[in-house]
Amino acid sequence: MFSPRLHVHLLPSLVPRDDLRGSTVVVIDVLRATTTIAYALAAGAAGVIPCLEVEEARRVAEELRAASRARDDVVLGGERHGTRIDGFDLGNSPAEYSAETVGGRTVVFTTTNGTAAMRHAQLARRILIGALVNAAALRQVLRDEPVVDLLCAGTQQRVSREDVLLAGALVDQLEAPGHFLNDSARIARDAWRSVAAMESDDKSRRTPSDEQLGRVLLESLGGQNLRELGFEADIALAARQDQLWIVPELHLPTGTIVPLAQPPRPA
Amino acid sequence: MFSPRLHVHLLPSLVPRDDLRGSTVVVIDVLRATTTIAYALAAGAAGVIPCLEVEEARRVAEELRAASRARDDVVLGGERHGTRIDGFDLGNSPAEYSAETVGGRTVVFTTTNGTAAMRHAQLARRILIGALVNAAALRQVLRDEPVVDLLCAGTQQRVSREDVLLAGALVDQLEAPGHFLNDSARIARDAWRSVAAMESDDKSRRTPSDEQLGRVLLESLGGQNLRELGFEADIALAARQDQLWIVPELHLPTGTIVPLAQPPRPA
Repeated sequence: MFSPRLHVHLLPSLVPRDDLRGSTVVVIDVLRATTTIAYALAAGAAGVIPCLEVEEARRVAEELRAASRARDDVVLGGERHGTRIDGFDLGNSPAEYSAETVGGRTVVFTTTNGTAAMRHAQLARRILIGALVNAAALRQVLRDEPVVDLLCAGTQQRVSREDVLLAGALVDQLEAPGHFLNDSARIARDAWRSVAAMESDDKSRRTPSDEQLGRVLLESLGGQNLRELGFEADIALAARQDQLWIVPELHLPTGTIVPLAQPPRPA
Repeated sequence: MFSPRLHVHLLPSLVPRDDLRGSTVVVIDVLRATTTIAYALAAGAAGVIPCLEVEEARRVAEELRAASRARDDVVLGGERHGTRIDGFDLGNSPAEYSAETVGGRTVVFTTTNGTAAMRHAQLARRILIGALVNAAALRQVLRDEPVVDLLCAGTQQRVSREDVLLAGALVDQLEAPGHFLNDSARIARDAWRSVAAMESDDKSRRTPSDEQLGRVLLESLGGQNLRELGFEADIALAARQDQLWIVPELHLPTGTIVPLAQPPRPA
């Protein structure tokens, strides 16, 4: 009998590429790449093209602009070491990605950890983009998938608490009898449950408030780095659970992330 | 001002060797190497010499026997794929290491993940051996150490839940204001707290019963493997929290693990 699989990988380097073959992979980089991608598409961006290198992003943007009717159909966004790249239109703050800045446009986006995780998943059947802001919509899609791998991007080969917590929240909510969980899935689930119960009078509650979660994110290595760079407001935006009913999917043939046409609504 | 450091590494490959320089490293391989080493020393073994390869273990044992008065001063122990190695005196079950089998003798011991983790920590100032069975004694020693790295051995490059849970228990109990925790330390601590609260009516309790913990260990990849091999009883032995007041330390110049002379007793 086939047993559905629900695996978590705390970093891309902890799973061989071949183990992801044929799977539905969710790439998670909560602070901030996957959060920003979700906001950009929710704000009406036509698509997001993830690029690993700054020069690759510039070249892709140039090519798209050359092929396009109007130069401003294309927006260059992304960061290095947390801050906007010289000559780029936008950085990596979710708040920058509004209907005004990206509505109807293609965003060429460069970020190291998130893009590296997507490339690591290149043998997957599907690659979805996960953040706290779109967790509920994602869950609806994942319920119908028999083989799911939640891939935490981490930060420069270090495990990131915020990515693991989102993976844990998804496991907590998707897990069903007969599911095969790996040890990292159980660790992530339990870490999430502990955060969900923390600071709450009701120790059985399954979800922390956005404020609680924002405080937890702020403690993490990524949160501390963002605070030092003056991006503390981005942490609160990243912690708005289920704010966006959107499931970004990386369309593999074109390398473009687009919103899934109709993520099923909860019954 | 100096801030004490309390880091967890979910696998040896997740921390560069050089980051462990000068630190007090606790090597954790709950199922079963570090548990068995603690039991062996508590049963009166004179020392345990960890070896990575079977042939290395045979050679070391031969050399020791040649230099020793009596051939049975030396015991060969260890496992490959869970089971005793051909020609070895003992396997890797804690129950095999009694006063009768190892009392007063040197155990030459081969195990892959645990030994690899010890070698990874070779630049450390001290290397201690951690298991659930000696967690309380270990904690007494660690309280006085300013730089602590808890190194989970894992299983063949996979994160092992039982190792992470012990690391989390140590963080939960050692953590103090001003400590610098990395993200993995927080993840491990939270995973432990969740297990500690699980199945308990009192959601604030900080320690699971040995029975609860045994059930959790049995769910893990390592626990499942042991059950399939017929070693389910070893899991219960590994889950006996604070059973042994002993802190094994790897004496770096000789490569021998000996019990720390006087682990301080709780006040």
